[in-house]
Amino acid sequence: MSRIPALSGIVRETGTEAMLLTGEVDLIYALGATALEGQCIIFPDDTAIFVTDGRYIEVAVQLLEPQGFTVRERSASVGAISFTKQILTERHVRKLLYEDDVLTVQDFARWRKLLGIQMIPLSGRIAKLRRCKSESEVAGMVRAQRIAEAALERLLSELHTGMTEREAAARLNYYMALGGSEKPSFDTILLFGENTSKPHGVPSDRALRPGDFVLADFGAVCEGYHSDMTRTVAYGNATDEMKTVYETVLSAQNAAMKAAVAGNLCCDMHKAAADVIAAAGFGEYFTHALGHSVGLEIHEMPVAALRCEELLQNGIVMTDEPGIYMPGKFGVRIEDMLLIDGETPRDLTEFPKTFTVLPEQ
Amino acid sequence: MSRIPALSGIVRETGTEAMLLTGEVDLIYALGATALEGQCIIFPDDTAIFVTDGRYIEVAVQLLEPQGFTVRERSASVGAISFTKQILTERHVRKLLYEDDVLTVQDFARWRKLLGIQMIPLSGRIAKLRRCKSESEVAGMVRAQRIAEAALERLLSELHTGMTEREAAARLNYYMALGGSEKPSFDTILLFGENTSKPHGVPSDRALRPGDFVLADFGAVCEGYHSDMTRTVAYGNATDEMKTVYETVLSAQNAAMKAAVAGNLCCDMHKAAADVIAAAGFGEYFTHALGHSVGLEIHEMPVAALRCEELLQNGIVMTDEPGIYMPGKFGVRIEDMLLIDGETPRDLTEFPKTFTVLPEQ
Repeated sequence: MSRIPALSGIVRETGTEAMLLTGEVDLIYALGATALEGQCIIFPDDTAIFVTDGRYIEVAVQLLEPQGFTVRERSASVGAISFTKQILTERHVRKLLYEDDVLTVQDFARWRKLLGIQMIPLSGRIAKLRRCKSESEVAGMVRAQRIAEAALERLLSELHTGMTEREAAARLNYYMALGGSEKPSFDTILLFGENTSKPHGVPSDRALRPGDFVLADFGAVCEGYHSDMTRTVAYGNATDEMKTVYETVLSAQNAAMKAAVAGNLCCDMHKAAADVIAAAGFGEYFTHALGHSVGLEIHEMPVAALRCEELLQNGIVMTDEPGIYMPGKFGVRIEDMLLIDGETPRDLTEFPKTFTVLPEQ
Repeated sequence: MSRIPALSGIVRETGTEAMLLTGEVDLIYALGATALEGQCIIFPDDTAIFVTDGRYIEVAVQLLEPQGFTVRERSASVGAISFTKQILTERHVRKLLYEDDVLTVQDFARWRKLLGIQMIPLSGRIAKLRRCKSESEVAGMVRAQRIAEAALERLLSELHTGMTEREAAARLNYYMALGGSEKPSFDTILLFGENTSKPHGVPSDRALRPGDFVLADFGAVCEGYHSDMTRTVAYGNATDEMKTVYETVLSAQNAAMKAAVAGNLCCDMHKAAADVIAAAGFGEYFTHALGHSVGLEIHEMPVAALRCEELLQNGIVMTDEPGIYMPGKFGVRIEDMLLIDGETPRDLTEFPKTFTVLPEQ
C-alpha cells in the first residue's frame, strides 16, 4: 500500500507544489521501509521521487519502485540540497512544504538559502496522518510486543537474589535484540524495591532482595514500530499492602480500558483510571498522565491525559498505564497498548497481569 | 571545574544578556552532569540558573550548587517557557542567545512567541568550545573505551561457526552494558565475510564461517562521553590477500597517526593514509573520510577529511579509521581514537592490532 496518494493530498490541500521529507520517522512512514537515507519529494499529482546515494540505491530501487516512487541516485560530488534543487527546478516548484518539526533553525536556514524558493511549514500534518494505524502498522507493533514479552518471560525466570537492576536491564535488552528487536524502544526502566516508586527511575547497582517489587517498563522496535509495556511483580514474598496497591492499579487499568471507546475523549480514559485510584484512597500517588499514543515514535499524539480533549479514533494505539507511587516504599505500574477499535479496544499486550510472587532463587 | 565562566564569556562576546540551553548534549556540557532535564540560563556576570522539576531537583541541587549554579524548581502547573520568561524578566534580559542547532523551527517559533524578546543564534559557538577536551573529559572517553575493549575481548573468545552477525552484535552490546556503558555509542556494526565490504552494513542473519573476516565497529558511552573503535580479525583461516589488505590498512593508519600533530591540518591525516593505500594499489577501495572528532556526540567537528582544512589542536579527539572495501569479497577497517597532543598523539585505544586469525570453534 503506497502512501504517495495520502501525502500528495496534503500537497494539494495546502496549495503548494511539492513536499520535502528528510526526517527519519517521516521517511519510514512515506517509504514504508526503514534504514534508507535520503530525501523524499512528493508532488501533487500522486508522483514521488526518492533521492539517495550509492550505499542505498540497490535496496531503494527494489523496495520503492513497486510503490510508484522514482528513485534517483545522487553522486558524492553533488550536495543533497543542490541535487534537490535541480529536481525542484525541473518540476517548476516555487512553493515547498517542509518538516518544521524536524529541521533545526540552522538546517532550515541552509535549505532555504540554497533552494531560494518559498518554504511552507507542514505544521504537524504528517503526524496527524500517522495517528490512525493501518493493519500492517499494527502488525509491526504486535511483532515488537511479542519480542518484548518473550524477553521479559526469560528474564523473570532468571531473576535471583543479588542481581542488580543494571544487569537485569542489560539482559532484557539483550533478549529483545536476540529476538529480533532493532533497538530498545526507549531507555529500559528496570527497578527493584523502593526504587519502583520513581516513575522514571534509572537502573542502578541496587541488588534484588526478597520482598521487593520488580518493575519493568520497556519495549522493542520492529521495522521502526515501537512497543511499550510495564509489568510489576513481587519477588520472594509480598505484603498485603503490596497486593492491595497492585489490585487497585489493575482495576484502574481495566476502568480506563472500558473508556477506550472510539468517540470518547482521550481524557475520559485518564479520568476513569484516576477515579478508581482516588476512590481507593491512593489519589495523591498517581502522579502522571495515564498514557500516550505509540507508533513510529514512542510518544505520539494524542495523549490520555486530564487536559487532552481530543477524540479517540479507530486506529489510535494508546498506552493504558496507571500507577501508584509511594515514595520510600514502592510503586506499581501496569501498562498495556490498546488499539482503539469501536466499542471495545484490542489489547495488543498478552503478558499475564494477575498478581504474581516469583519464587526466591 | 565549573563551565559557567567559559559560557558567560560567549554571552559577553556576543553583546547579549543571557544564553538559554535546553539540548541534551549542551546541558551535559554546561552542567558537567548527565540525566538532568531542564533549562539552563547563563548570564554575562558568571552566574547561571538551572530550572528543573520535582523529579530532578534533589540531584540538581547536590551536583550543581557547588559549581555556582542557582537551582530553581518549576512546579508542574507552570510551563517551562513561562517559567523561563519570569526569570528573564527579573533579570531584564532583552537579547537572548539560543541553540539554533538544537531547536526545531517549530520549537523556536513557540519559544520566540512566548518569550517576546530578541533571540540570537549561538551559531555553533558551544560546539567550538567543546572541540578541545579537558583531562576529565578524556578520562570519560577512556573509561568508555576500556569497557568497549573488554566487551570485544569477551565476544571474540566466544565466536563460533554458525553464530549470526545479529547475535554477535547483541552480545557485544550486552557485554558493554554489563561493563557499565550507558548505551551503545551508535548502532553497532558487526559484519562477517563478504558483508565486511559495506562500510555501514547492518548486522543480519549471516552466519559465521571459517575463512571470514569479522569486522566490529562500535563504542560505549560513559557520563555522556562516547568511544569509537573498529577491529577486523580473521576467523579460522585467511588468504594471503586478506593479510596483504590488512597490513596495508594498518600502515595507512600508522601514517595518519604520524600526521596527527598539533598545527597540521585535518586533511593532512586523511592524505597520509590515502597515500599509503593508493601506493599499495588499493586507492579506489578507500571510499570514505579517514575520521571524525568524538566527544559528547559520536560525530563532532572537525573531521579528518580531504577537504577539511581546519587546524588540529591539542585536546581534539579524532578517529583514525582507514579502510579498504572490495565489494563481494571483504573489507578491512582499523580504527583508534587519537587525542591530539603536540607532536605525538595519545592513542586512547589499547586493543591489539596485529593481524589475527582466531581458531575455529
